[in-house]
Amino acid sequence: MNKKYASEFIGTFALVFFGCGAVTVDQLSGGALGLIGIATVFGLVVMTMVYTYGHVSGAHINPAVTIALAFSNRIDRKEVLPYVGAQVAGAILASAIDLTVLRPLFIDQTILVEMSLGVTQPVNGSFMTALIVEAILTFFLMTVILGTVVDKPAAGNFAGVAIGATVAFLIMFGGPVTGGSLNPARSLGPALVSGELSHIIAYLVGPTAGAIGAVALYDRLKSLANKQSLEQGEESAL
Amino acid sequence: MNKKYASEFIGTFALVFFGCGAVTVDQLSGGALGLIGIATVFGLVVMTMVYTYGHVSGAHINPAVTIALAFSNRIDRKEVLPYVGAQVAGAILASAIDLTVLRPLFIDQTILVEMSLGVTQPVNGSFMTALIVEAILTFFLMTVILGTVVDKPAAGNFAGVAIGATVAFLIMFGGPVTGGSLNPARSLGPALVSGELSHIIAYLVGPTAGAIGAVALYDRLKSLANKQSLEQGEESAL
Amino acid sequence: MNKKYASEFIGTFALVFFGCGAVTVDQLSGGALGLIGIATVFGLVVMTMVYTYGHVSGAHINPAVTIALAFSNRIDRKEVLPYVGAQVAGAILASAIDLTVLRPLFIDQTILVEMSLGVTQPVNGSFMTALIVEAILTFFLMTVILGTVVDKPAAGNFAGVAIGATVAFLIMFGGPVTGGSLNPARSLGPALVSGELSHIIAYLVGPTAGAIGAVALYDRLKSLANKQSLEQGEESAL
Amino acid sequence: MNKKYASEFIGTFALVFFGCGAVTVDQLSGGALGLIGIATVFGLVVMTMVYTYGHVSGAHINPAVTIALAFSNRIDRKEVLPYVGAQVAGAILASAIDLTVLRPLFIDQTILVEMSLGVTQPVNGSFMTALIVEAILTFFLMTVILGTVVDKPAAGNFAGVAIGATVAFLIMFGGPVTGGSLNPARSLGPALVSGELSHIIAYLVGPTAGAIGAVALYDRLKSLANKQSLEQGEESAL
Repeated sequence: MNKKYASEFIGTFALVFFGCGAVTVDQLSGGALGLIGIATVFGLVVMTMVYTYGHVSGAHINPAVTIALAFSNRIDRKEVLPYVGAQVAGAILASAIDLTVLRPLFIDQTILVEMSLGVTQPVNGSFMTALIVEAILTFFLMTVILGTVVDKPAAGNFAGVAIGATVAFLIMFGGPVTGGSLNPARSLGPALVSGELSHIIAYLVGPTAGAIGAVALYDRLKSLANKQSLEQGEESAL
Repeated sequence: MNKKYASEFIGTFALVFFGCGAVTVDQLSGGALGLIGIATVFGLVVMTMVYTYGHVSGAHINPAVTIALAFSNRIDRKEVLPYVGAQVAGAILASAIDLTVLRPLFIDQTILVEMSLGVTQPVNGSFMTALIVEAILTFFLMTVILGTVVDKPAAGNFAGVAIGATVAFLIMFGGPVTGGSLNPARSLGPALVSGELSHIIAYLVGPTAGAIGAVALYDRLKSLANKQSLEQGEESAL
Repeated sequence: MNKKYASEFIGTFALVFFGCGAVTVDQLSGGALGLIGIATVFGLVVMTMVYTYGHVSGAHINPAVTIALAFSNRIDRKEVLPYVGAQVAGAILASAIDLTVLRPLFIDQTILVEMSLGVTQPVNGSFMTALIVEAILTFFLMTVILGTVVDKPAAGNFAGVAIGATVAFLIMFGGPVTGGSLNPARSLGPALVSGELSHIIAYLVGPTAGAIGAVALYDRLKSLANKQSLEQGEESAL
Repeated sequence: MNKKYASEFIGTFALVFFGCGAVTVDQLSGGALGLIGIATVFGLVVMTMVYTYGHVSGAHINPAVTIALAFSNRIDRKEVLPYVGAQVAGAILASAIDLTVLRPLFIDQTILVEMSLGVTQPVNGSFMTALIVEAILTFFLMTVILGTVVDKPAAGNFAGVAIGATVAFLIMFGGPVTGGSLNPARSLGPALVSGELSHIIAYLVGPTAGAIGAVALYDRLKSLANKQSLEQGEESAL
């Protein structure tokens, strides 16, 4: 058992167990969390996992992030398979335990709503909406990761706060539109456990394409900036 | 009067007085706080106590944390009794003062609800639900504590933010399921003062077992990682 | 114009203008902020003022804090009068401008509610409730200030976050009980501008007594701890 | 493509796309975000952009900030045009994409509300209210920027947290009064794309005047303080 892969497994487990579980708990409690509460849970889980596992595995807990980092040679490409495997396994197990633990509570309380495991679906049923919006959302998540983790000296230890906050506001915006996944593993876990796989491809491809787009733009801007670095440096304090 | 024990006493007093008190205030005000507000109060109290007393006593303010740290020889086992004693005493006094101060407000306003002191109960009345869910929740709380406090260089001073955030999201998820205790002292105070002791054993054993489980897993992963530490170190920046 | 006193004036102005103003805006908007929103505004204003003016004046923006620090000789007693004067002047001006700016909006929209300027009153009309609860709340505010600012190396730059968070959770708890003042200037501004001075003495004496109590306990514990400092130092990392 | 201007473009795009978009999503979802949620999105976007682009361009993402910094010679005046151009271009593009992506969702769900793009308008229809309140709000935003970024050693890396928090509480207060713009680009994007340009001058002039006022006061206090710097230095720790 490798500590890095164990961290990705536990971190993604936490994201899906508490984040997607919060969707179910919101139903169970008659809407006690709402969109703000659910987005807050996802954001706080990501933030705490960055501080808990950032120094161990990087705390990607998101296949789109792992693939984009490998795409730009920031991590070894041989790591992609075990990382993504650990993430997806953690997400599936989390959804399965959510189902096992929370389903009896719905039955006991005879709440007549269909239990959600946090499956992501586009509000208008459009595959293209899911694909494009998820790509845009994850583009910004990856942009923040690059600006705060890769350019580490700038943000210092605030990368966790910035990344968690980004997840929270992206879900506040994107939740009513596409479910606000940003993360293939986070969509795959509930989808596989509940058997609701419609549009799942949009949630695998969209976030991954958005993250790769952010890396590509970041590297393009960086290479252009290298020619101008001296005059830029002077004004960066403001 | 030892400063460490005084800190644990005051810190746990604050947790129960304001956190459990927020449950009562929520009733008094017709639901002005809700689940998000109550979870936020608990999370912010824990965060501020970590920054206020972390350097004095470690700011455990939770017998499950104290016992798990002693279990793994991170603190002297002779400290367990005075720490847990201070925590439980603070929790009981806090609940007693909550009762004294807030009860007259209910009577004056003739609100016909049964006043809650923040007693924790499983939503479905099941002892096993309380035991298992509380163990899972506290497993993650302890995992974040280990990743951010024990592995201090990684999180820097963000341990307080991460631990407080974890308490908040665990209660947002766990509140409607088990009350979201995570802490034997926090459950014991309201239970003893109100005389409502059903399922209290689940709230003593569950969090403690979860915290010990997290320590055991953490140490197991660490000993395995020591054999691989060189190649791991290279990629930890991402 | 002294920069320190100007900072206390502007900081307390901001606290009352935006914090107490949020109470009025909540009315104007039919409850868009609620208790959580109002407590959040107060907490965020305090946090930002600590980061903006902490290095200039200490960012007390609260006569109870200034008096307690002078009481324990942490600031020169000659500073009390100009500090408190600047704070009270800022609070009165803020309430006056809130009244001027926000009153026409109520009239224009013909909302038939009595406009509040954020005057603090005990929910049960009891002077003693206001006095005692405000003393308890401010005791904890001052305890956090001492633990994070005076013991600076422990909390690092997190003092602002911890103090702002404390203000937020104290108001979430105390708002429906006493209005959650914690601050004589914050109560005095709206009271003087609106002419509603009942119980104002409780809001002057309660917070001040609570803050002095926190300083007294802190210094007592510290002097006791000096005899035991060696064995304490060893375990403070957890 | 200059990296600084690209950062201002992307940062302002994010502010308008997610912040103003949250206003639309709030409508789409029947009020799932509310004032607190919308203000939170704006605040979190600003915070994350400061950490992502602060070291590149300063992350102004606000023409009022850029102009005030140039006014006081803190940045080169030749930078004003490209900075403001990038900000306004990002804002307009963001509003156009919000319209394109979100409009079909309204039509599909046949929600019979007029879609808002987050256009800012004074609640009472008064140009002067918009001008004055926006100037006051942005005065405080700029004051926090000066206190935490220019006086960098005081706030350390907390500038992003403080500035984002300020945006959040200013919008919680100002949202129901003027829309809480604080930012000419943020108002201009939705106004141009929707063709609703009434009062737009108030939202261009008000924030800019407020930001310049804050810089002028800051520099005036600083020059006065230089004569008294020795005695001030001694007490700044509290």
